Amino acid sequence: MKQKMSFREIRYNEKREKILKNAAKIFAKKGYERASLEEIANQLKLTKASLYHYIKSKEEMLFLIQLQAIQQLRKGLEKVLQSDMDPVEKLTVAIQNHVKTVTQKHVIGALRQQELILPRKWRNEIISERDNYEEMIQKIIQEGIQKGIFNSLQWKISKMAALGALNWIVRWYSPRGALSDDEIADAMVDFILKGFLKNRESI
Amino acid sequence: MKQKMSFREIRYNEKREKILKNAAKIFAKKGYERASLEEIANQLKLTKASLYHYIKSKEEMLFLIQLQAIQQLRKGLEKVLQSDMDPVEKLTVAIQNHVKTVTQKHVIGALRQQELILPRKWRNEIISERDNYEEMIQKIIQEGIQKGIFNSLQWKISKMAALGALNWIVRWYSPRGALSDDEIADAMVDFILKGFLKNRESI
Repeated sequence: MKQKMSFREIRYNEKREKILKNAAKIFAKKGYERASLEEIANQLKLTKASLYHYIKSKEEMLFLIQLQAIQQLRKGLEKVLQSDMDPVEKLTVAIQNHVKTVTQKHVIGALRQQELILPRKWRNEIISERDNYEEMIQKIIQEGIQKGIFNSLQWKISKMAALGALNWIVRWYSPRGALSDDEIADAMVDFILKGFLKNRESI
Repeated sequence: MKQKMSFREIRYNEKREKILKNAAKIFAKKGYERASLEEIANQLKLTKASLYHYIKSKEEMLFLIQLQAIQQLRKGLEKVLQSDMDPVEKLTVAIQNHVKTVTQKHVIGALRQQELILPRKWRNEIISERDNYEEMIQKIIQEGIQKGIFNSLQWKISKMAALGALNWIVRWYSPRGALSDDEIADAMVDFILKGFLKNRESI
């Protein structure tokens, strides 16, 4: 049973969220390395001391934004896994969910930066969340194989090829570029499904 | 016309190469962030001062190893582009070349680390080399489209999907893992070609 949050806690969390969203935008614009806590505080008209009340370091911001993005990925997939869609539909929605999540303005700057630079404790949390997410993708693929729709040959490599194609998007996508997230999602669905399907006609 | 190198220059370069190979192994083993110049010097039985004669910083090592890997990728493709292979064969060899290059023991540790952490001057050199490489891949895809073998729909996104699948390998491949580089290369060829081909029968 979840305990009810006090008004103070709700306000604290809202403020923290606002700080994170702002930080993420600055990361996307200037790159994580060149962004400074001072700048993030200035933009929000906070002193560095009051910023510190909510978040202790740039690394903590990076960690929290990455964590929220991966949790959003997982939440998006949970509904899909519980549904009665067939594996092709499930994988389609999973790919769309992935593209939509990583291309969001307020996460792309943080996802461009690898979790490798985080302190071990936080890095391990990100890796464990990501492992969970990858297992959910794996369940969809295995269901497709069991139902005879997906290729079973080297499916683990195909899974990593698909995740690589999707995770790499943050390295080349620009929210101000010529391609919309919808176009990218559609093309990724097409490309990745072809890799998994036994018969192309099933698309 | 290339000038002939003196014996001294040749020896200097050989020594530098040896240092880089060693550094790369330590990066792969401990991670770039946790590796230290002291450790690299110790392994080669050099003082830090004599190491400094060849290479000035850990960042310079990272830069040089990444640069060599991308140049190796390009060299591998140059021959392919000049050949009279058909686009399917060209893309096949390009994918094999990519997998073989990035999974090498002495480069994987450096490629796992993003070029984003490099000083701007070096980062730009890496990005420019990579752009050149991506243009070569693009030529193969465009040839396939012109000959009516590859799909033209959203081929730029397909190109980035393929490069993402390939570049992501360094994030999950382990030289001591269950999968050999040959198996990964074969599976990647299969997965990526399916994404590009109009008719699967052409594989």
